Amino acid sequence: MSKAATDSNAPLYIRMQEQDNVAIVANDGGLPAGSVFPCGLVLRDKVPQGHKVALGEIAEGEAIVRYGVVIGYAQRPIAQGSWIDESLVRMPPARELSNLPIATRTPAVAAPLEGYTFEGYRNADGSVGTRNILAISTTVQCVSGVVEHAVKRIKAELLPAYPHVDDVIGLEHTYGCGVAIDAPGAEIPIRTLRNISMNPNFGGQAMVVSLGCEKLQPGRLFPQGSIPIQSTGGREDGLRVVCLQDAEHVGFESMIVSIMATAKEQLAELDKRRRVTCPASELVVGVQCGGSDAFSGVTANPAVGFASDLLVRAGAAVMFSETTEVRDGIDQLTARAASAEVAQAMIREMAWYDDYLTRGGVDRSANTTPGNKKGGLANIVEKAMGSIVKSGSSVISGVLSPGDKLRQKGLIYAATPASDFVCGTLQLAAGMNLHVFTTGRGTPYGLAAVPVIKVATRNDLARRWHDLMDINAGRIASGEASIEDVGWELFHLMLDVASGRKQTWAEHHKLHNALTLFNPAPIT
Amino acid sequence: MSKAATDSNAPLYIRMQEQDNVAIVANDGGLPAGSVFPCGLVLRDKVPQGHKVALGEIAEGEAIVRYGVVIGYAQRPIAQGSWIDESLVRMPPARELSNLPIATRTPAVAAPLEGYTFEGYRNADGSVGTRNILAISTTVQCVSGVVEHAVKRIKAELLPAYPHVDDVIGLEHTYGCGVAIDAPGAEIPIRTLRNISMNPNFGGQAMVVSLGCEKLQPGRLFPQGSIPIQSTGGREDGLRVVCLQDAEHVGFESMIVSIMATAKEQLAELDKRRRVTCPASELVVGVQCGGSDAFSGVTANPAVGFASDLLVRAGAAVMFSETTEVRDGIDQLTARAASAEVAQAMIREMAWYDDYLTRGGVDRSANTTPGNKKGGLANIVEKAMGSIVKSGSSVISGVLSPGDKLRQKGLIYAATPASDFVCGTLQLAAGMNLHVFTTGRGTPYGLAAVPVIKVATRNDLARRWHDLMDINAGRIASGEASIEDVGWELFHLMLDVASGRKQTWAEHHKLHNALTLFNPAPIT
Ligand SMILES: [Ca+2]
Ligand SMILES: [Ca+2]
Ligand SMILES: [Ca+2]
Ligand SMILES: [Ca+2]
Ligand SMILES: [Ca+2]
Repeated sequence: MSKAATDSNAPLYIRMQEQDNVAIVANDGGLPAGSVFPCGLVLRDKVPQGHKVALGEIAEGEAIVRYGVVIGYAQRPIAQGSWIDESLVRMPPARELSNLPIATRTPAVAAPLEGYTFEGYRNADGSVGTRNILAISTTVQCVSGVVEHAVKRIKAELLPAYPHVDDVIGLEHTYGCGVAIDAPGAEIPIRTLRNISMNPNFGGQAMVVSLGCEKLQPGRLFPQGSIPIQSTGGREDGLRVVCLQDAEHVGFESMIVSIMATAKEQLAELDKRRRVTCPASELVVGVQCGGSDAFSGVTANPAVGFASDLLVRAGAAVMFSETTEVRDGIDQLTARAASAEVAQAMIREMAWYDDYLTRGGVDRSANTTPGNKKGGLANIVEKAMGSIVKSGSSVISGVLSPGDKLRQKGLIYAATPASDFVCGTLQLAAGMNLHVFTTGRGTPYGLAAVPVIKVATRNDLARRWHDLMDINAGRIASGEASIEDVGWELFHLMLDVASGRKQTWAEHHKLHNALTLFNPAPIT
Repeated sequence: MSKAATDSNAPLYIRMQEQDNVAIVANDGGLPAGSVFPCGLVLRDKVPQGHKVALGEIAEGEAIVRYGVVIGYAQRPIAQGSWIDESLVRMPPARELSNLPIATRTPAVAAPLEGYTFEGYRNADGSVGTRNILAISTTVQCVSGVVEHAVKRIKAELLPAYPHVDDVIGLEHTYGCGVAIDAPGAEIPIRTLRNISMNPNFGGQAMVVSLGCEKLQPGRLFPQGSIPIQSTGGREDGLRVVCLQDAEHVGFESMIVSIMATAKEQLAELDKRRRVTCPASELVVGVQCGGSDAFSGVTANPAVGFASDLLVRAGAAVMFSETTEVRDGIDQLTARAASAEVAQAMIREMAWYDDYLTRGGVDRSANTTPGNKKGGLANIVEKAMGSIVKSGSSVISGVLSPGDKLRQKGLIYAATPASDFVCGTLQLAAGMNLHVFTTGRGTPYGLAAVPVIKVATRNDLARRWHDLMDINAGRIASGEASIEDVGWELFHLMLDVASGRKQTWAEHHKLHNALTLFNPAPIT
């Protein structure tokens, strides 16, 4: 990456690779026509911040190259110094899923990074929590009004007596009944709910509130053996179930009393947990982006990628996801795979998603949002290049299907939709204990179950949303910090947040987005 | 419908039609083998309450008839007095959507029912609210953490100053971004959100919180002209938008301040509303069922059907829905249509749903739940017969597509999935101002936007859930009340609840299920 200037007032552009024939304008507020860059390039148009400028003459039909990759073709001749609005960029055809490079550029395993630790809650199954939360699983949306009521009462009446427990949350969702539970794809929401209940932050103490007549019966959500931890009450294998339709429940208050009594048993066990020093290798970090702009791919995402490499060197697990956003970079990913099996698994997941979208009649151009375009991203190819850099440069060690639980370390492609909430929900199911989220346009995103560290791509956003953004990667564009600086800062912040020494802004304001299940099957 | 006895202790069965060769056991707790009915029939097996008993010998392959309809064929010979468990019933093939009777049994228009009124909030667009609620629309899930925070503050700090406003709710949902917004079917969730914002209980005062970069931009959710009411602030046509990404927002608190300031303007206008006497014809009632059992179709649903006929005679609108549950009775519905156009519209909606399910690889047997079967419903055909009776006997005057707004009176088939939450959400979009919900197994269902009257199918449920069920139709099975008695009771309760003279139990406990959009398109 090269910058045309470092003085933060002077006209500044960012070019990603030597072969790029476009760069993006870095200055806050953009630049007026006539601005002169240090290299002598003169802007012919007013160019908004983050938008592309032609570094040389581009003929009609000629490739527009960014990140060293063809992001499109010129719709008409483009003069040097012109603004390349998205209407000037004809999108290249989708990369086919055949003849891909398979593990051809597998990166060398980097030197281990040792000595980094955090204070976490070790669970009996070997996982490590970063928070100590009582989670109440639900089989079906029918019970959520009752569970919400019970959660308020538990927080007010019970939680104060268990000072080592951080929070109480209801795992509410819209699944469980009125759905085609045996249709192809229905296994995804079911295993997602099951695995979320086993998130390391919940201590392996599953408790479930069931209605009674729902399709997703407790025994289907949690088959015998799926709960690894023995406990005193409940079913033989430790599953505590409160069923609202049970004959013992007479009146609304009796349901609340049952839930609270079960919660009390759970709280007593959770309250015994204490933070202990754990190696950084126990982190399971999910990274994603939302509200992306052209700076996502040059500031925040590269910094996350750098931190991701540090985590992998430290022996941790890092998941990158968002299938629709990395699909156009599949050839880069298969080339970086640890083995042919890993590459084939990526192709399998992407092919499944291609088919899912085709069945729904979806055009791949549908991913870019009005905000993406306003932020300077011409199309999904340009967005994908900027999204993939979150994954850093490590070898890709594994692939996870949506809703599955992660059981290995290293850099993992966890196949999920790009939707912030669906991706976050699936990463929770995978066992994520820390979430890193980059944003250019800004989003107040947060999850109840796991801390979310938000990284701003631009100084302006970091300044305005000073109490919502946890890290400002915009300093990379203004020359105040390097990718490495921000990457290390993020790495250290992750250890602090994981340890409970620091709270994220989303935790501070208690900003919690609802769980959002990925259910490719019909509802009935 | 004939009952074999009226003494509430004696063995009792309920046969729906003269030609039925099965009946259901009415007694609480079921009956032991050897029980003798007044007609002399002796039970060969222990039969649970609500389950079917063979009234005569049924040969292998012979039709099993209930509601005068073939609900299946005997898998093996069934002796008189035997329990007909669902495993004995082979499901008949699905009714094809061709060669249907079209408006062949159009019922005569019944005598008008005059003189019934309720106290409601009249809106400028002619609709009438039953509650006076400030609703905050959202374009995208990203804003929901901020909106939830703002709603708490508005309730605590502003609402007390506006005593004529009942409540403040955030219309949160999982749509708006990360979705294939131009794919076939995407119009359904979008118009659903638009029309919910215009629900009569919100007074025509739309206010929306937007993130800024989402796919579902405020101008797409509410195109110019979609907000009928002029107001002082906001966009020219009265739409008040708070956009979190606007440059004016510096810091989290500034977002809350903006939302509260806009809410204050809305509250001031809503606070001017007063209840006025309105004819019962202004009711827009959505009926549905959930957690059904074999009593749903013999007690609660017939009582709702009776009340539905009263409403239609009073000039009101009544919507019945739940496509997957009435699909197997399509021939009854097309026969009752007011015109060929109405019948064809029903066929069109059912064909669309058939196709939707087929694309998703769904078997039609998927609708019946474990609870349905436990409650005595053998299959979807039997369930459909019991579900359709909610619609009463009136002529079917119109058909509504999912998410559309209702613009006519009379009995309407509003095509929705059977999922309680999706159906309720779509009926809210249609303009429902009162909801009637029947349940056999029991559900604590409630909505924030509209009162939900819950009708129990059995005495046992009504007794145990005494502070969750608003009406006990179980008295019909035990001979304590007639269908007409309970129907009239429900009709009067509807007028009381609509007037705010009575609260439903769900309102009392503040049991609110989340809005659940029907989005047949993929997510991205
Ligand atoms: Ca993204
Ligand atoms: Ca995302
Ligand atoms: Ca909530
Ligand atoms: Ca139903
Ligand atoms: Ca239903």
